[in-house]
Amino acid sequence: MADLKTLIEANNEKFMACFKANDMKGLAKLYTEDCKIMPTGSDTLVGREGPEKVFSGAWAGGVRTLELKVEEVGPMGSDVIYERSTYTMKTEDGSVADAGKYVVIWKKVGGDWFLHIDIFNSNKA
Amino acid sequence: MADLKTLIEANNEKFMACFKANDMKGLAKLYTEDCKIMPTGSDTLVGREGPEKVFSGAWAGGVRTLELKVEEVGPMGSDVIYERSTYTMKTEDGSVADAGKYVVIWKKVGGDWFLHIDIFNSNKA
Repeated sequence: MADLKTLIEANNEKFMACFKANDMKGLAKLYTEDCKIMPTGSDTLVGREGPEKVFSGAWAGGVRTLELKVEEVGPMGSDVIYERSTYTMKTEDGSVADAGKYVVIWKKVGGDWFLHIDIFNSNKA
Repeated sequence: MADLKTLIEANNEKFMACFKANDMKGLAKLYTEDCKIMPTGSDTLVGREGPEKVFSGAWAGGVRTLELKVEEVGPMGSDVIYERSTYTMKTEDGSVADAGKYVVIWKKVGGDWFLHIDIFNSNKA
């Protein structure tokens, strides 16, 4: 799965770069048009307004960098991939605002990969 | 995707039946041996002790029925399926203890389907 992991990590680099630049519209475009984002404390949000809202909220809450670490991806040979990873959100001074984990379902649309389903939760109760 | 949805729903019936019978060892056997369960407030748990612990915890907290409602399923190659669904946990008197959503990655092992990755969160903050 080395190639798949590399593929996902390259996409995650774009994701982290958009977040760091506070470009939440650009970040939302990394998702499919009919994406589903599933944050704690809310119903599932449908469409790109979802990630824009969720990550703008994190920025407004003081998060300035998002670190994503891929733990598992699979499978080969299809247009849908799952990613199981961890995240760390840090504030301006580098302190950890939140740490948790997520699963993303990636979908290939017109030759490019997009986040299609995104669910995550905090390691803190 | 009608057949896939039917397949997942049939597996979820087994899951709900195990939970209702407080058979958490049986429930854990519906997961792969190296499954990952990802509850809020904890790191990812690896192996069947994870679901046994998580769902025993829900039972101890007064939950007596678990209702799963499939919203979307999709194939990834032939031996992996993703499921996006909602859950409702109810106590003995039928009141809602918690409601939320989840994503499960199902894996086919030796002809049978098992939950391989399970991540969920509450709609309540």
